[in-house]
Amino acid sequence: MAKEESVSDLSRRQFLGTSTMLGLAGIGLSAGLSACKDGGAQAAADSSAGAAATAPAHGAGHNPHKLPGQLDDYYGLWSGGHSGEMRVLGLPSGREIKRIPVFNMDCMSGWGITNESKAILGTKPDGTPKYMVGDTHHVHASYAKGTYDGRYAWVNDKINSRLARIRLDTFECDKITELPNVQGFHGIFPDKRDPVDQNVDHTTRVFCGSEFHIPHPNDGRDLESPEKYGALFTCVDAETMEVRWQCKVDGNMDLVATSYDGKLAASNQYNTENGIHYEDMMSAERDACVFFNIARIEQAVKDGKFKTVGDSKVPVVDGTKAANADPKTALTAYVPVPKNPHGVNASPDAKYFICAGKLSPTATVIELEKVLAWFDGKLDDIKKTIAAEVELGLGPLHTAFDGRGNAYTTLFLDSQMVKWNVAEAIKFYGGDKNAKYVVDRLDVQFQPGHTNASMSETREADGQWLAVGCKFSKDRFLPVGPLHPENEQLVDISGDKMIHVADHPVYPEPHDFIIVKRDKIKTRQVYNLDDFPLALKDPKESRVERHGNKVTIHLASQAPAFSLREFKVKKGDEVTVILTNLDKVEDLTHGFAIPKYNVNFIVNPQETKSVTFKADKPGIYWCYCTHFCHALHLEMRSRLIVER
Amino acid sequence: MAKEESVSDLSRRQFLGTSTMLGLAGIGLSAGLSACKDGGAQAAADSSAGAAATAPAHGAGHNPHKLPGQLDDYYGLWSGGHSGEMRVLGLPSGREIKRIPVFNMDCMSGWGITNESKAILGTKPDGTPKYMVGDTHHVHASYAKGTYDGRYAWVNDKINSRLARIRLDTFECDKITELPNVQGFHGIFPDKRDPVDQNVDHTTRVFCGSEFHIPHPNDGRDLESPEKYGALFTCVDAETMEVRWQCKVDGNMDLVATSYDGKLAASNQYNTENGIHYEDMMSAERDACVFFNIARIEQAVKDGKFKTVGDSKVPVVDGTKAANADPKTALTAYVPVPKNPHGVNASPDAKYFICAGKLSPTATVIELEKVLAWFDGKLDDIKKTIAAEVELGLGPLHTAFDGRGNAYTTLFLDSQMVKWNVAEAIKFYGGDKNAKYVVDRLDVQFQPGHTNASMSETREADGQWLAVGCKFSKDRFLPVGPLHPENEQLVDISGDKMIHVADHPVYPEPHDFIIVKRDKIKTRQVYNLDDFPLALKDPKESRVERHGNKVTIHLASQAPAFSLREFKVKKGDEVTVILTNLDKVEDLTHGFAIPKYNVNFIVNPQETKSVTFKADKPGIYWCYCTHFCHALHLEMRSRLIVER
Repeated sequence: MAKEESVSDLSRRQFLGTSTMLGLAGIGLSAGLSACKDGGAQAAADSSAGAAATAPAHGAGHNPHKLPGQLDDYYGLWSGGHSGEMRVLGLPSGREIKRIPVFNMDCMSGWGITNESKAILGTKPDGTPKYMVGDTHHVHASYAKGTYDGRYAWVNDKINSRLARIRLDTFECDKITELPNVQGFHGIFPDKRDPVDQNVDHTTRVFCGSEFHIPHPNDGRDLESPEKYGALFTCVDAETMEVRWQCKVDGNMDLVATSYDGKLAASNQYNTENGIHYEDMMSAERDACVFFNIARIEQAVKDGKFKTVGDSKVPVVDGTKAANADPKTALTAYVPVPKNPHGVNASPDAKYFICAGKLSPTATVIELEKVLAWFDGKLDDIKKTIAAEVELGLGPLHTAFDGRGNAYTTLFLDSQMVKWNVAEAIKFYGGDKNAKYVVDRLDVQFQPGHTNASMSETREADGQWLAVGCKFSKDRFLPVGPLHPENEQLVDISGDKMIHVADHPVYPEPHDFIIVKRDKIKTRQVYNLDDFPLALKDPKESRVERHGNKVTIHLASQAPAFSLREFKVKKGDEVTVILTNLDKVEDLTHGFAIPKYNVNFIVNPQETKSVTFKADKPGIYWCYCTHFCHALHLEMRSRLIVER
Repeated sequence: MAKEESVSDLSRRQFLGTSTMLGLAGIGLSAGLSACKDGGAQAAADSSAGAAATAPAHGAGHNPHKLPGQLDDYYGLWSGGHSGEMRVLGLPSGREIKRIPVFNMDCMSGWGITNESKAILGTKPDGTPKYMVGDTHHVHASYAKGTYDGRYAWVNDKINSRLARIRLDTFECDKITELPNVQGFHGIFPDKRDPVDQNVDHTTRVFCGSEFHIPHPNDGRDLESPEKYGALFTCVDAETMEVRWQCKVDGNMDLVATSYDGKLAASNQYNTENGIHYEDMMSAERDACVFFNIARIEQAVKDGKFKTVGDSKVPVVDGTKAANADPKTALTAYVPVPKNPHGVNASPDAKYFICAGKLSPTATVIELEKVLAWFDGKLDDIKKTIAAEVELGLGPLHTAFDGRGNAYTTLFLDSQMVKWNVAEAIKFYGGDKNAKYVVDRLDVQFQPGHTNASMSETREADGQWLAVGCKFSKDRFLPVGPLHPENEQLVDISGDKMIHVADHPVYPEPHDFIIVKRDKIKTRQVYNLDDFPLALKDPKESRVERHGNKVTIHLASQAPAFSLREFKVKKGDEVTVILTNLDKVEDLTHGFAIPKYNVNFIVNPQETKSVTFKADKPGIYWCYCTHFCHALHLEMRSRLIVER
């Protein structure tokens, strides 16, 4: 540092600025964050020292901690990134209450092991799950009347282009849909009401943006023909989880937002050049936020104005820029925003989508009424939909809202949250240079990606808590080797100033999340036997049924015993164990493990599940309960006898 | 309730007492915890109300919470139960800093996907992992001079009888050993010094108890011949992780404890009747805590006094009761303790093992000096090793220590922790009816299994914090459907009274755990390229190598790019991707995902990993970085081209 009087904050900002410039210059391999080896450590040390000296006591800001037995005020529905799962946090305490296995294998619950979970996951011809990996990105929940209705959440898998639905009464995944002809499925958002029938004021569709361009179809032909490549925006039916339609666009789509009136969905985009090599993707000065006119697209599908791709039967309409030049018939509208934007979020007053600059230090405020006006032919220039484009800081990514007119945007490169007032930003952009739109700044630790505030993406945004998903935790927690946790920071936003009240380490990579008031969700705590056609309702009916070499074991669990003390099969049999948990007490889950046969799964109270395996190893196998249930839990087992 | 003045605590105890009696009466299917449907809910409600009215403020007891940026004081090494993983918590905050994949599949890190992890896990002939499920039980760490030395931790898998080692410099699993001829591998404990060479004052062996009796060998013969059944106690070498020897015993072993002088290991046991049907296992009035004379067993092995079982080459000595009647030559000593005991723990003063009664309301204090005296022929009756056997409450399971002479035992059926003084208990048992050994009682929520205190199982037990693993959380957290989290409760034990300061929900089933002072563990935060023979040290050497239809891709990652923009293979090729992360910055991990090819894994700074797959689908596959690394992370990818 040149001057001794440099304050640590300044040197930290300088370092990050330098790092940015190297990264943006595209020096690639030798640049970017790899340049921060020493500077980064110094920055972390500075910040840490600062925290020790100036961090707020729990008295400053609301206390996020809960006394023993106290319940949290909000559900946090958290993406698990490439852990493939979803997570449920209690907020403000930050405690993880549940992991929901979705695209991952989970040997606690038997997800990927039971026949029921494999039917949801999809299987290969040999009966094993088709995929074992997933990369969950964005979690969003169903709406009614502009706020969460507690029916469903959805989360997407980027690696294998799948959309999963989570029932919010049981907090379990019940359906997974693989999108056809899509690669790099990045953003999702449910609609908030019907675009045509305004009586349908709840979610009926989920929109899916795809990032990577691939040949259509991707069968090994047209490998080097950019004109044969494409990216599809997909509409999935919220109830059936079937794909309704797809819309081909220019550019690589990231995030998705939807309007409160149901008429518009949008996705921010990069590579509007449609390049298929990296070097071809970065030339345009501006990329776009592309808007979809849902009613027109669905009319086009009705009118038969679509193609299909490869083996898929899904109608694909043409939403490319060239095909939609006339606003009055356009299915899509491309609003130009600075190069490689990232993140698009709908403000809770229903007026704006805010698109963050990523490589530009700006956020672009797009006025939805004007986008509709453009589609109506009442606006001569699409650029006039832009209500504001203001500088916020380096690396703006995602934006949350407090319901009081303020927006909170993550600045990845600055490692900062910026609180800014949307109305003031519009004034400033309109020429009022006295308008002060930046309200507050807060350093976070470090490099924040997504952010969200309590009820932010609803009409009931309540401005209480803000969570910031920091991608690097560096020295914020006890060291645990080369793989660091990420750092979810909790910020009290109930006052004028943002107050950082807690750090929470999380297993990578919690990509995105929503924060839902607890009264929006009503759960079932015990299953109903009638929901399971295979249920064994009376333990007296426990039995071993044989048809040829297929053997079915009908079994029940009731603490502290399984209903059969033993069951016999023959080597070579295909064995199916169907287990019903007849205990009715809330929280009284049983497990069922078979040594050496790769079987373990749980059955919750009044639930039925099954597994199928080939009895290829003769001998004695003590099947035991893995989920603590009773003082004699350890003695709860059944003897599987595989005869030679 | 009969009287209006009944206090909620009393009614709760009454309820639990009733439930116990039903359970112990063996009414089985219709009894036990399933009886608590209404009573349980009432008890929970009572307790919850009590908590709201009387729970300590954070000021009562030390505050367990940490300000943003403050580090925790202890590492908690937590078993993950049938999640198959190990977990690292920071204590006292209770924050989970890391999950360590061990027996489970983990698509975040690629555990079960990379060639390196599959080599540790073991594979089937088709190259997929041999098992996808595991049931981790007990975590224990290596010792030197009677305390943790920060080298290793071990955790066992009950389902498939495997022992895994975790390096504590990297917090990663580096070796897994499957024990031969063992089923239901329950307890483990490392030795604390060598039984013969007292210069070796650190861990060199890990002892493993097995629970289920199976025919030896278990090949489908002798299915109904109890005399052919057996259970083996196994010694694994701490460094090589190879099995050194096994010892056949009577009874089903649960937990394991080891003495500070290295001479003794012990396991508590039930089914000393050696029954192979449930009904045959419960007749004996007393079961045993079996002690192993390690030096004699190893001498017997040297002397060739062993057999082998089936295909296994491991020497198996005879430790059954009948074969070890003469103390002077005995390999084992069976100390009688009340029926179906559970849990055996070594006191930090090195004098006692404490065996908890489970079905008996007692703990048995066994004096190690007297066990050695018995082996020396200086004690006429093994029962004289019992220094005390005192009533604690209903369902005693596991015991922790504070280093000040007090023991803390979980009472599963009472849902309570009892603090008791060992010296006073010995006095009481010796006839001094004025000796008050019970110091304090604390209700916990609900049904505690394991417990442990900070540094409890070392000579440095410091009596600061106690963790209690409660199996049922009922209404202590926001409801998340039929599957409940478990409840890890944190108790301040620094004063005379136990003070419950926090509830933490955890994903099932954290079976057991240890709490290690943070200065005991020194981690590596960046790998060394030289540790990886396959490392690509210079990105200029990135290349595609072909030998017949085997193709190897040598690739490097450096934010924000992979070293090859694309790589081509042919349909049908067997493709191996070897990826080296050349970034050197701490925390700068990259991921590598291939859509539709079931590939995702991470490479930490300076680490190398590989995957192998068959290129059976022609087309374009955008391999992308899944672990946030840079402002241009989203653009970090490489094009896999599979030609037709």
